[in-house]
Amino acid sequence: MPIIPDVEIMTIGDELLYGQVIDTNSAFMGQELGKLGLRVRQITSVSDRADEIVATLDQARQRAQVVLMTGGLGPTKDDLTKHVLARYFGAELVMHQPTLEHVEGFFKRFNRPMLEVNRLQAQVPANCEVLFNAVGTAPGMWFEDRGTVFVSMPGVPHEMKYLMSNEVLPRLQQYFQTPAIEHVVVQTVGLGESFLAQQIEGWEAALPPNVKLAYLPYLGGVRLRLTGHDDGQPNLRARMEALLPALRSLLGEHIFAIGEIKLEEAVGQLLQARGLTVGTAESCTGGLLAHRLTSIPGSSRYYQGSVIAYANDIKVRELGVKPETLAAHGAVSEATVAEMAEGLRRQLGVDVALATSGIAGPDGGTPEKPVGTVCIAYADAKRTVTRQISFNRGRQLNLEYTTTMALNLLRLEVVK
Amino acid sequence: MPIIPDVEIMTIGDELLYGQVIDTNSAFMGQELGKLGLRVRQITSVSDRADEIVATLDQARQRAQVVLMTGGLGPTKDDLTKHVLARYFGAELVMHQPTLEHVEGFFKRFNRPMLEVNRLQAQVPANCEVLFNAVGTAPGMWFEDRGTVFVSMPGVPHEMKYLMSNEVLPRLQQYFQTPAIEHVVVQTVGLGESFLAQQIEGWEAALPPNVKLAYLPYLGGVRLRLTGHDDGQPNLRARMEALLPALRSLLGEHIFAIGEIKLEEAVGQLLQARGLTVGTAESCTGGLLAHRLTSIPGSSRYYQGSVIAYANDIKVRELGVKPETLAAHGAVSEATVAEMAEGLRRQLGVDVALATSGIAGPDGGTPEKPVGTVCIAYADAKRTVTRQISFNRGRQLNLEYTTTMALNLLRLEVVK
Repeated sequence: MPIIPDVEIMTIGDELLYGQVIDTNSAFMGQELGKLGLRVRQITSVSDRADEIVATLDQARQRAQVVLMTGGLGPTKDDLTKHVLARYFGAELVMHQPTLEHVEGFFKRFNRPMLEVNRLQAQVPANCEVLFNAVGTAPGMWFEDRGTVFVSMPGVPHEMKYLMSNEVLPRLQQYFQTPAIEHVVVQTVGLGESFLAQQIEGWEAALPPNVKLAYLPYLGGVRLRLTGHDDGQPNLRARMEALLPALRSLLGEHIFAIGEIKLEEAVGQLLQARGLTVGTAESCTGGLLAHRLTSIPGSSRYYQGSVIAYANDIKVRELGVKPETLAAHGAVSEATVAEMAEGLRRQLGVDVALATSGIAGPDGGTPEKPVGTVCIAYADAKRTVTRQISFNRGRQLNLEYTTTMALNLLRLEVVK
Repeated sequence: MPIIPDVEIMTIGDELLYGQVIDTNSAFMGQELGKLGLRVRQITSVSDRADEIVATLDQARQRAQVVLMTGGLGPTKDDLTKHVLARYFGAELVMHQPTLEHVEGFFKRFNRPMLEVNRLQAQVPANCEVLFNAVGTAPGMWFEDRGTVFVSMPGVPHEMKYLMSNEVLPRLQQYFQTPAIEHVVVQTVGLGESFLAQQIEGWEAALPPNVKLAYLPYLGGVRLRLTGHDDGQPNLRARMEALLPALRSLLGEHIFAIGEIKLEEAVGQLLQARGLTVGTAESCTGGLLAHRLTSIPGSSRYYQGSVIAYANDIKVRELGVKPETLAAHGAVSEATVAEMAEGLRRQLGVDVALATSGIAGPDGGTPEKPVGTVCIAYADAKRTVTRQISFNRGRQLNLEYTTTMALNLLRLEVVK
């Protein structure tokens, strides 16, 4: 019977304690550990002081069988995790030749001068196993000490992610022989968490005991994650997938995908499958809608271009919005966004267009159109559809919510 | 002589441990505590289990004189912080009449039905001081227990922020009579952390003992943060600011601002001060550059619009890029981005234009132009400037880095 380890996450750095950097690393690590079925016991953020790092290590090993650390491995002098770990595990720092060659190659490839501090990044405590960091210069380090596994990774998020995915998680699975676990993620959009929970209450109550449901809300919708634990019966995944048709009948078009896929990716797949091109005409969203569409690799196969028309005269000149429409209804109106979407289709020659216009805030609201009032439009060869949204949680979230609603409008309309 | 307390932050909830919610609360609290000169000793995120909350409280009070908690005060059944605290401090839960009236008023105002669980939110441990939560239903609670201050706040970010700013921080200042501390943040762009550290090594070594320097790297640059501790001499802030001219002479134009301000904000201020309008012509960045510019409140005073030209024929039709230029140099070339920027200026009638074209990846690279090759251009009435960048850390970071370099190009060129 394998032991399922408790894991403790330790993020190191004064910048975390004083909120100069938001600790997204531990969120990523927690997500990935949860997917393996490991329990995350605690997350601790500590200072760059050696004595406090050591005190936390001492306590963490009493609570957990695995301690994952990030931070304090960069080249500057306040980065001292490596020295603390060498002393803590009673080892000398030694030059690790493959890492040194990797670091040298790194600097050569990017034509940057290599400094002594960079050379020292290739030093590691003699008793660790080096985890190769293909995307950066600071290696990961794996220690086993009196029954506890300690792993140190750099704090740069994409380097930590690389090491977690390619080195740490596979080693943990192998080391602890973690039992099988399956995840099925159901992506929904357009329903709030409590309303959604009410809709599927009966379905949730009837889930088999080895399948757990988690609600993972995001701005505009909820991800539902089913976690299936090995019950000794075959075909765990297939049995979990057999639960989905009943869920679909409850949630209908609010489900936009099964699996780890974003709304913009699902929209891209729909467009590509139909051989349609898309473009956007944006006022308030200021390019965020185009950015979300083009954040998907390969989006050039369906995304053609956009006109961002913040200024009204650009709406008129570049998108053919009628000055009379602006005068009669204002820039933030369903009439205006309809003309923006239609104009964009004509102007860029795309099959499908989305348009946005609204008051993102914090300024610009009026009694009739308060901050958070947004109009969105979808246009294709056959018709134009518009919606008005009222949502005010601050500029950044208003823009994000608007683009989610616009992408969802496209998703629903393009299949009609 | 006042005691400067160490503060420990405790955030409670399984959703934090599994990365379903990113812990932005502790970042905000850390920032605010740091501004008061209080030392943040540790941040701990713990589960919703009573025994683990109690164990963390026991440890926290040994490390710090103040323990600030968030989370676990909502109306749902797994929110149990209040019960744990009542038991921990040996008090009964009692109904707090002013809070009950506030909660009742809250539900009446929003026309929502009030449930028994909502009524119970007005119960507090008998020995706490209630902190009034004007923006929500769960009150804050202040306990003093054997020399340690414990404060419990709801986990909803805007409620926590309200309580911190209006109740907790003023009480802490008064309670501990905290001494002065000052921060000066120097924003730099275009130098990596280790190279920057080398450049300012001598300056850093000569800092007075009561002034500490922190490197806060981000993609494309580093924020430098000076923290000055009260040394009994007057004019701490002025003395810190007197350190800056020497830093400026070392870093020159790499410093883009003093203070908590983003590059896009600094660029906006430059444009506004000069009465210039701006627009972007984007290929690879797909709207991200426009989004960054328009993420700043009030950006409509200088930002006019953009043409996102992913498809080459849109570059030709909408931006006037010559087919010969595309044929001779390709879309990713300094010649093409120059024509994009100039074309955008003409087309939208803006004073200043930025353009981008590149291979963001993961696909599309060639031996001559590998993934990460990007060209950017700046154009104004007098001239056009282009740059080629090579930077490959994955699609998302490549785009972010490109937009930072483009904003910086604008910053440097617009003042020439």
